[in-house]
Amino acid sequence: MGRVTERRRTIRIRDGAVSTRPDTLVAEEPLEIRLDGRPLAITMRTPGDDFALAAGFLVSEGVIGDGSEVQSIVYCSGATADGVNTYNVVDVKLAPGVPVPDITLERNVYTTSSCGLCGKASLDAVRTTTRHPVADTPPLRVEPGLLAALPDRLRAAQRVFDRTGGLHAAALFSETGELLDVREDVGRHNAVDKLVGRALTDHRLPLSRAILLVSGRASFELAQKAVMAGVPVLAAVSAPSSLAVDLAAETGLTLVGFLRGPSMNVYAGEHRIALETAVDRG
Amino acid sequence: MGRVTERRRTIRIRDGAVSTRPDTLVAEEPLEIRLDGRPLAITMRTPGDDFALAAGFLVSEGVIGDGSEVQSIVYCSGATADGVNTYNVVDVKLAPGVPVPDITLERNVYTTSSCGLCGKASLDAVRTTTRHPVADTPPLRVEPGLLAALPDRLRAAQRVFDRTGGLHAAALFSETGELLDVREDVGRHNAVDKLVGRALTDHRLPLSRAILLVSGRASFELAQKAVMAGVPVLAAVSAPSSLAVDLAAETGLTLVGFLRGPSMNVYAGEHRIALETAVDRG
Repeated sequence: MGRVTERRRTIRIRDGAVSTRPDTLVAEEPLEIRLDGRPLAITMRTPGDDFALAAGFLVSEGVIGDGSEVQSIVYCSGATADGVNTYNVVDVKLAPGVPVPDITLERNVYTTSSCGLCGKASLDAVRTTTRHPVADTPPLRVEPGLLAALPDRLRAAQRVFDRTGGLHAAALFSETGELLDVREDVGRHNAVDKLVGRALTDHRLPLSRAILLVSGRASFELAQKAVMAGVPVLAAVSAPSSLAVDLAAETGLTLVGFLRGPSMNVYAGEHRIALETAVDRG
Repeated sequence: MGRVTERRRTIRIRDGAVSTRPDTLVAEEPLEIRLDGRPLAITMRTPGDDFALAAGFLVSEGVIGDGSEVQSIVYCSGATADGVNTYNVVDVKLAPGVPVPDITLERNVYTTSSCGLCGKASLDAVRTTTRHPVADTPPLRVEPGLLAALPDRLRAAQRVFDRTGGLHAAALFSETGELLDVREDVGRHNAVDKLVGRALTDHRLPLSRAILLVSGRASFELAQKAVMAGVPVLAAVSAPSSLAVDLAAETGLTLVGFLRGPSMNVYAGEHRIALETAVDRG
């Protein structure tokens, strides 16, 4: 399964010099996720950690919330016409007694059964389906100085990015700033699902003492995944969207954006950020 | 509909100084796309250009290929329980005689009716469903020096990014480097769909003399959208994925990545790049 990168012939143009050489690219392939044999979703992902990706996806969608609810995760064989296993189809079997949801899950989306949807309704839907409401007791208390150090630690742990420039990264840190896990993927949502899925199978959910750091922007979807996994602090190197901020405020998630060294913005859940330590260190 | 940005109270930490002020965020809201009244897909998008987004999405999915195939696009009313129009639901009515596809479309995905899927199958699927195979006659011939100038032109045309840092941008240029159209969105696929949708309703499809530039990475999905709109050249500021390169090679699309000033990589379709002009200008 070592298909994290692939090589392709490339023509390089550099200040007037043209050369041809192989270039390392991030691998992207479709993964079909099945639930008890039924196709559920297809995501474009970087191969690897596919079982974790499938498990994390199901956590994000509220289908499962604990490792004991999964009976097995397997690659389906015979995925091509000539019977060759492409390792692009994964089937998750739920443990006996775990209800199979009667829903149409779609990648990157959430649907409502009513005639429409709006920001408010979607926030309600997330809040009611989460298995792990943000409930860190006592509340996490993070110094800005600790957050400031995390992007460099994430970058140091990114193995593929330097070769391809094409990957999003997501990492879990302990409340003392220790790197717990890092995943890279061509899709940022996949990187987070892989982290969460690994935590699920290791019986580490909810992640109520963890900080989730993402290399890019904080969309609604990423905030939703943090909430579904019980993560109390989501930090992003880049900008959050309006709906990500709204969801964080509604669910009690701490949302930090533009985390770049000692500079950062706190958009929600500021009670977990030890602001007084920032001032003293100016 | 001017909800491209929204303001939220933010706590800023800058080198030890803590201040509270409103921050401008990119707006993100769900859009449900209906086809002849039937819900088809939901995408998280930046409000604005929603009709173009819906039309472009249907082009990307191979449902329509010409402006005459659309009878009307309207916002559905009564989208919330209290009857308020959220402008988050759009219904596309096809013109009489245009076949309504019997498929389950899912955002960001493509499904096959067979037992599985793989990279090869997906490439085949795209090639067979495109209404506008890349067929620029005579072939476009672009000098690297022309491509080198495009990212700055895109950046100059980006109005929202400077305020929020949270938007992807996509632009169409003529073969002589003239900016034809630019769209920004929290989702890069939406920005491209908005461009394509606008071109459709303006009866400018296929875009067989255009260059499509995207601000970020070139995923399979973006390459697919370029192919479906008949675009011959896709250029990305950042890295392409392996599957994007494979699709470009299979369909005849020219794919340029890491376009940063005079430096760029050509991954496929190099016959459209006037490499000899790069050498002479060194």
